[in-house]
Amino acid sequence: MAPTPTLVVHGGAGALSLGPVSIDDLKAGILQAARAGYKHLAGQTSSALDAVEAAVCSLEDNPLFNAGKGSALTVEGSIEMDAIIMEGADLRTGSVGCVQNIKNPVSLARLVMEKTEHILLVGDGANKFAREMGVPEIPSEELITESKRKFLKENEKFQSSVKYLYKEREMGMDDHDTVGAVAVDAHGNVACATSTGGITAQMVGRVGDTPLIGSGGYCDNAVGAVSTTGHGEAIARVTLARNIIFYMEQGLSPQEALKKGLAYMKERVDSLAGGIAISNNGEIGHYFNTEGMTWASVQNGELHYGVSPGEDLVTTY
Amino acid sequence: MAPTPTLVVHGGAGALSLGPVSIDDLKAGILQAARAGYKHLAGQTSSALDAVEAAVCSLEDNPLFNAGKGSALTVEGSIEMDAIIMEGADLRTGSVGCVQNIKNPVSLARLVMEKTEHILLVGDGANKFAREMGVPEIPSEELITESKRKFLKENEKFQSSVKYLYKEREMGMDDHDTVGAVAVDAHGNVACATSTGGITAQMVGRVGDTPLIGSGGYCDNAVGAVSTTGHGEAIARVTLARNIIFYMEQGLSPQEALKKGLAYMKERVDSLAGGIAISNNGEIGHYFNTEGMTWASVQNGELHYGVSPGEDLVTTY
Repeated sequence: MAPTPTLVVHGGAGALSLGPVSIDDLKAGILQAARAGYKHLAGQTSSALDAVEAAVCSLEDNPLFNAGKGSALTVEGSIEMDAIIMEGADLRTGSVGCVQNIKNPVSLARLVMEKTEHILLVGDGANKFAREMGVPEIPSEELITESKRKFLKENEKFQSSVKYLYKEREMGMDDHDTVGAVAVDAHGNVACATSTGGITAQMVGRVGDTPLIGSGGYCDNAVGAVSTTGHGEAIARVTLARNIIFYMEQGLSPQEALKKGLAYMKERVDSLAGGIAISNNGEIGHYFNTEGMTWASVQNGELHYGVSPGEDLVTTY
Repeated sequence: MAPTPTLVVHGGAGALSLGPVSIDDLKAGILQAARAGYKHLAGQTSSALDAVEAAVCSLEDNPLFNAGKGSALTVEGSIEMDAIIMEGADLRTGSVGCVQNIKNPVSLARLVMEKTEHILLVGDGANKFAREMGVPEIPSEELITESKRKFLKENEKFQSSVKYLYKEREMGMDDHDTVGAVAVDAHGNVACATSTGGITAQMVGRVGDTPLIGSGGYCDNAVGAVSTTGHGEAIARVTLARNIIFYMEQGLSPQEALKKGLAYMKERVDSLAGGIAISNNGEIGHYFNTEGMTWASVQNGELHYGVSPGEDLVTTY
């Protein structure tokens, strides 16, 4: 039986914003992304790959989220972005690391998957490939937002950004994280995509977990799809996305698998994170142990979304 | 009970050389690397991390192996290297991708682990970090060998290199792959390291599986350590190293886990590879489904080594 086409998106786990960005604006952004992705799941051309790419592009284009426009700044004030996309039929994947001046890194990652024999291109080589593919390069100024510039000024040490965003503490105030999407289409294909500007004050040349297959994302038609968000270094050390897929393979639901994966990460490397997951039959999971995570899911024309723990609002598609 | 200090090294899986490099020279090189690493496992200062780094440095310095000096050339004739190192007590890891002009990328990866808050630095950023750490940069000419220049001329298409090295065919002749090491020390700590020049005729900016945690290597004191070698893109698509650690976690021996991991990879993404593994109590595994893989293991002063399937020669340490 064909699965019910389903999409889950996230706009990053981390500290809840009480700063210049309002929670309402984040919610509007995640709903917009969910709608942008879900329309690719209808009818005969239903494509999980198209859906996750479109959802992530929407979040990259939204300056409130830390990917594409609005990316976090490196310690030198530049923007270096990472992204991955993967499809579950043949485990094909493409990713880019430390790429500059690109409006939609997730679409460049898809070109790596579809137009090269490689899975990951980084730095100048990734930009060279973008030029060969006719992908326009845009000035850094079009990607940099005033809010991220201010956050860098206030958090010039990478470790203070990490501590601020992903460690347990009494309250948080600002910044958001990595975005991503997972989907299953009417043909039973799953896909995942994740995109990020990294973490404020990171070193030049730093690549986080996002473009590392099995860390920032993983999917397999035999199981499902996962996209993660949080302190990249910690996520990678436990290959969080691959772990969650393993737990699902062993019979856990997407929600249980996310909980188990994040609990293991907390215990083993003492860091918090979030993630979304979907099974190949359309079962939905979204979970985080940070203060908040912007997420939305769409299935049968019904849209669920939330930011705070336990929050589950409903609207129509 | 403290485990018996043990080291396993590999000099790459792929086609067996019938070309300019003799099998005897490869065997001499892998024995030298095993001895260079094993000496760090003796006595109170026994360190798995020091052992895998020293073994891999020895292979990077040896122009017969595809890492450091003797790395494969990109389609533009340049050398871009990837390396990873990881320790199993706290799952700390460091890696570099697409780095140029560095004699020992694995040692730079260790500096990323020990001196930064990151796990992966790529391209110019990795070289900038090397300069900050006082790591000397050397001219490309000191890393490029005539044999690799010739191999690029003969295999100007990346896909022909891949087909030549890692697909089933009647016979092979040349080139060798990625190097690596795994160890357990007298304190029960495990470690892994992997280093590579990539695959001949790869695109500029391409990063393979080697520096991707869970693909090129993984280790955990609770289980053991793994280092992989083969067609990087295919290894990454199945997160080969993490899979093998999972199989060991589920009770398989290192050897059985390697066999199962490589069989799954063959079935799922139709590519061949090799790997070495060690359990946290010193049980040894080395396995490949390519034509050959140069490997050696040392335990209790006894040195085993081989290249062809089933070959297991013994000498004294």
